[in-house]
Amino acid sequence: MKLAKSLQNIQPSYIREILAAASAPGVISLAGGLPANEKFPLALMTNSLMNLPNRAELFQYGNTAGYAPLLTHLKERYQLPHSHEGIVCTGSQQGLDLIARAFLNPNDIIVMEAPSYLGAIQVFGLTQANIKSVSQRSDGPDLDELENCFSTNDVTLFYAVPDFHNPTGVCWSLTVRQKVAALCNKYKVAFIEDVPYRELRFKGEALPLVSSFCPDNSLVLRSYSKIATPGIRLGLVTGRADWINTLNIVKQASDLHSSIPMQAVLLDLLEHDGFEQHLEELRQLYSVRYKALFQNVSLHLESYCHANEVDGGMFIWLSLPECDVDALAKSALEHGVAVVPSSVFYHDRTSVTPALRLNFTNASVEELAIAVERLAVVIKQYCD
Amino acid sequence: MKLAKSLQNIQPSYIREILAAASAPGVISLAGGLPANEKFPLALMTNSLMNLPNRAELFQYGNTAGYAPLLTHLKERYQLPHSHEGIVCTGSQQGLDLIARAFLNPNDIIVMEAPSYLGAIQVFGLTQANIKSVSQRSDGPDLDELENCFSTNDVTLFYAVPDFHNPTGVCWSLTVRQKVAALCNKYKVAFIEDVPYRELRFKGEALPLVSSFCPDNSLVLRSYSKIATPGIRLGLVTGRADWINTLNIVKQASDLHSSIPMQAVLLDLLEHDGFEQHLEELRQLYSVRYKALFQNVSLHLESYCHANEVDGGMFIWLSLPECDVDALAKSALEHGVAVVPSSVFYHDRTSVTPALRLNFTNASVEELAIAVERLAVVIKQYCD
Repeated sequence: MKLAKSLQNIQPSYIREILAAASAPGVISLAGGLPANEKFPLALMTNSLMNLPNRAELFQYGNTAGYAPLLTHLKERYQLPHSHEGIVCTGSQQGLDLIARAFLNPNDIIVMEAPSYLGAIQVFGLTQANIKSVSQRSDGPDLDELENCFSTNDVTLFYAVPDFHNPTGVCWSLTVRQKVAALCNKYKVAFIEDVPYRELRFKGEALPLVSSFCPDNSLVLRSYSKIATPGIRLGLVTGRADWINTLNIVKQASDLHSSIPMQAVLLDLLEHDGFEQHLEELRQLYSVRYKALFQNVSLHLESYCHANEVDGGMFIWLSLPECDVDALAKSALEHGVAVVPSSVFYHDRTSVTPALRLNFTNASVEELAIAVERLAVVIKQYCD
Repeated sequence: MKLAKSLQNIQPSYIREILAAASAPGVISLAGGLPANEKFPLALMTNSLMNLPNRAELFQYGNTAGYAPLLTHLKERYQLPHSHEGIVCTGSQQGLDLIARAFLNPNDIIVMEAPSYLGAIQVFGLTQANIKSVSQRSDGPDLDELENCFSTNDVTLFYAVPDFHNPTGVCWSLTVRQKVAALCNKYKVAFIEDVPYRELRFKGEALPLVSSFCPDNSLVLRSYSKIATPGIRLGLVTGRADWINTLNIVKQASDLHSSIPMQAVLLDLLEHDGFEQHLEELRQLYSVRYKALFQNVSLHLESYCHANEVDGGMFIWLSLPECDVDALAKSALEHGVAVVPSSVFYHDRTSVTPALRLNFTNASVEELAIAVERLAVVIKQYCD
């Protein structure tokens, strides 16, 4: 069979592809967006997992929208208005895929920041959407560019990661959040707010969701990969009921529903007395690792490149002088450190700014120090 | 946001929608395709489930194609040739969705038997394929119709459920299997073989997969919902490596991968010494229930309608005299028995033959007897 046309421009995920190479013995990986294994809240999940064999009803077919007690908990947890609904997905990645399939036709115009989340570029590529990019500044998207884009195009949706952006780590300011919501309302552009890193803030106060300023014109994507564990593959989409019901129809055809035993275990975890303490410890660990990475980068690489400071999330973005970032990343892997070159985060490869995405959550402080030393050798070679 | 064009002809699954009504107190459901809860092999899964908290590595992100030890086991179990690969999916439903997304463009021609599996009609509808139907006989598809369809159209794929078809329970004969494979090879039509009920044969000998006669021109979809449990949402697609690799790319965007803890538990179950015995007991139970349903139907309804005999699977197909099957099914629900009218199993609603699909795996012998009594009242009313 020939490839569908929608696939002919899709590249396999560089990140998924290099995960194997990055896990080779001796390689320190700052490439993936992997949470710290040693902080998986398995102790808090043990009773729940051990009790699964006694709960046969969890192993039968279930509702497409999700395990009802979990949905009830999540609606309360996120204080959804009565007119809103939720749908549990096989990871928030599936939520994004359902949104694209439910609401986009080929050539429909969507907007993303550049750089942007690779998984979103893939999903919108599969639906053959016409992707427009707006530049990202230190406090969010360039608002003039955004309004210009909205006013001169018939835009269906604007997809963004306002809390600790992947790949840059940028967190949108309150003002930007309000202005983006106002622009989305003014131009009737749906705002798709992806917040997998929202609970991973280790400095400062949480800011309101952008969607809180345009609740009936937005969908929120949440992930349990970062605050629970990725392997269970659970995420959530919330928003107005008619939009969520449409996602339900696509999900019926996509996988009927997500794993019910895993949904029951997630519910028990979220309701566990120790869960808030787990989150606090997670944030502390990531704060320590972030500081270690940032300090090492400052120490070894300050004269070559610029790293942005972040208040949470999993990544820092290392801006480089003009160079071949793909060759640099390949060479880094040969030197025992896996990183992701900026090129993979741009839909439009002609506008790539040279940079590397560095993850700080899955390596120890000691490993982070060694990784930066190895990286420094390669960067000096490519950028000197 | 407006619905994507691909959704505008898609109806929510009647079966998924009535599952709630069918589970109301007092209603006996022969509607769903639910396996028997009381036969879930949870006793065989207990050690594996209890051991999950000690296996942190299962809770991290994993490979898109599946948990490597499970894939290795499955390739051996199904004796895949070296040139073939497998991909673990979030239920075989996802496998079908991936195939459609990977290989179909809008208006591409695909062939199904009529009636056919509702979930497949939905998936092919979402990709806006041009669905051609061929009639089904007691030993498989009408071969003259099939060859005529292949020879006069540029057909991409033929999707079928040769072992205990959903909804009719028909099992293709060996001759039909060989001839269909030959026609697929002759006309270069990929054969998509969906075999969720293959292990549920309680009479006679297993027949070779159709795909065994056209291995490099086919994909096989397997489900663990019927032989393990549905709630864990695991299925498998196998076939030539280049086709499976293409599915991998779509799956990356769809959900990154399926639940790893559930894949590890499935592997332990398949390797458990008691698994073959479990399957044997499952077949015996379903055989007893099938006989009870069939005998009750023969006793109460013989003069009104015709039920086909089956050698396995989960369904019988009750052909009715000309009547309004949708109204009949609705009335049956009011009389305390849920069934599925034939209309939902036809892509082309103008060619519907009046019938009901009756499931025999999820109700006890006593419940099946009461269900048929209730159904008889309604059928006499509608068909007399």
